[in-house]
Amino acid sequence: MQNDIVAALDIGGTKIAGALVDLRGRILVRAQRPTPAQEDGETVMRAVEAVVAELSTSSHWPRARALGIGSAGPVDASKGTVSPVNVPGWRGFPLVERVIAASGGLPVELIGDGVAITAAEHWQGAAQGYDNALCMVVSTGVGGGLVLGGRLHPGPTGNAGHIGHISVDLDGDPCPCGARGCVERIASGPNIARRAVRDGWVPGPDGDSSAAAVAAAARAGDPVARASFERAAQALAAGIAATATLVEIDIAVIGGGVAKAGDVLFVPLRRALRDYATLSFVSGLTVTPAVTGTDAGLIGAAAAALGAPERRRDMVVGGGA
Amino acid sequence: MQNDIVAALDIGGTKIAGALVDLRGRILVRAQRPTPAQEDGETVMRAVEAVVAELSTSSHWPRARALGIGSAGPVDASKGTVSPVNVPGWRGFPLVERVIAASGGLPVELIGDGVAITAAEHWQGAAQGYDNALCMVVSTGVGGGLVLGGRLHPGPTGNAGHIGHISVDLDGDPCPCGARGCVERIASGPNIARRAVRDGWVPGPDGDSSAAAVAAAARAGDPVARASFERAAQALAAGIAATATLVEIDIAVIGGGVAKAGDVLFVPLRRALRDYATLSFVSGLTVTPAVTGTDAGLIGAAAAALGAPERRRDMVVGGGA
Repeated sequence: MQNDIVAALDIGGTKIAGALVDLRGRILVRAQRPTPAQEDGETVMRAVEAVVAELSTSSHWPRARALGIGSAGPVDASKGTVSPVNVPGWRGFPLVERVIAASGGLPVELIGDGVAITAAEHWQGAAQGYDNALCMVVSTGVGGGLVLGGRLHPGPTGNAGHIGHISVDLDGDPCPCGARGCVERIASGPNIARRAVRDGWVPGPDGDSSAAAVAAAARAGDPVARASFERAAQALAAGIAATATLVEIDIAVIGGGVAKAGDVLFVPLRRALRDYATLSFVSGLTVTPAVTGTDAGLIGAAAAALGAPERRRDMVVGGGA
Repeated sequence: MQNDIVAALDIGGTKIAGALVDLRGRILVRAQRPTPAQEDGETVMRAVEAVVAELSTSSHWPRARALGIGSAGPVDASKGTVSPVNVPGWRGFPLVERVIAASGGLPVELIGDGVAITAAEHWQGAAQGYDNALCMVVSTGVGGGLVLGGRLHPGPTGNAGHIGHISVDLDGDPCPCGARGCVERIASGPNIARRAVRDGWVPGPDGDSSAAAVAAAARAGDPVARASFERAAQALAAGIAATATLVEIDIAVIGGGVAKAGDVLFVPLRRALRDYATLSFVSGLTVTPAVTGTDAGLIGAAAAALGAPERRRDMVVGGGA
């Protein structure tokens, strides 16, 4: 019974979630704290320590053999540090060293949150069984991660698959990252909503001008709302096609709030993909919605903790509740 | 002395080159035939067979343990077939099977020509010692290949790194591949020349309107010629930054005729890269000219033949004449 579970942390700008996870990806124990995102770095770290401390009171804790962290980025896995955009108190914060200490010396694996969601989808979700996959989250931002040759490809710093900040419109609108025409600048939820409003879409009586409200309007036939989703779909298609052309992937999995729009997004996306993924070796690419839900970050962090090659042999693929 | 060399074939639309190559990447024997590119598939294959036959008359031939092929693309390494755009007689042509037969049963490794040049630069050139690299050829077309985690990343079909056909301008000019605004559509030699002429650049008395002539004019201060190179540099920068953001690379190596323009290309390229490669984990990216010359295709094909993991241990890194 020893060493047959892992601990996982999912660190975002809103909450810090923790869990103990078994080799089938089942969550045995949970703990959670709000992220004191606007406080100083030590205060944020105390919230992480509180989550780890709560997990460590579980009777399962002694079985944990490693701890995986999926964190809002950028992260630097090579240095063990994180600098989440939405947590200003953490800039080059030595999270790995601090979590090793807080956990009593467990081996710790750090990846970016896009990579974590990819690990979850590859282990338990829509990318299961695919050796080459791109998994994305399209939400307030656009993130992602890659599976190449059957393995997670976090890259040296844990940030690979950052599809939200590749430029698909080199003369396009300035992006907060400093570049222009990034996929996120066109396809994120806030940008879908912004473009719809700019082009004349009027929110309903409840005043809801979110991307979900634009999706509802598009589903009801509003042409401006539809056009905004089509533009997002075009940018996503160009980014997905670029990824497939660069590294050869067989499937692109899309999760996050914007993916919940369903056909409003996926129908024009699949159509646009035919326009951009033209070479023989990418034209068979499949696009599909993600299936892991709100626990994807935790499941992916657990997968990363399990993912070192020497530990993989007893990881149960295709498991789950 | 047995099994300490490899055979290599570099198959393009103009010529079919062959060589026997030692573990330091030195070419011991050469053979070459023009590509009968407009003839039927069997006629093209006979030219390949003639090259292999000539190599096999060498006293070194019995030492060859494998044969690598770098071919104009698209290729399909998983099926062992090639469909070079410039060789219409070959569509899904079973090149690997035929070369195995022609070589008397040597193990054969097939990769695309962009991947081959990458293998050469990683073994003998500017990407030596880098675990994560993009190597490109900017010439009549734009091709490339990737080294990830210290190894060549050809992808399942041998086409990965196809940076010429990622879109960096999703509303841009139609590309012969079917997409829009591809890197090649903006940055290839013919497109640099076309844009300069369109915008009012007038060739010299010799009537030379090639990209090399545009580069000479740019070097002499012609503003239209400079602007055409700057636009190419911008597209290359967006493509290189996208690649770095997706897979994390430390260096981009650029060869091919257009790279010979030197500072006319590299100065605006490095400037534009600062505009597009903005995230912390890509902002340290280096761009540098390729150093392997006209034999890069052969050297890279040899590297691929040597590249299977069990054969790598006696490959001499950093060798060459």
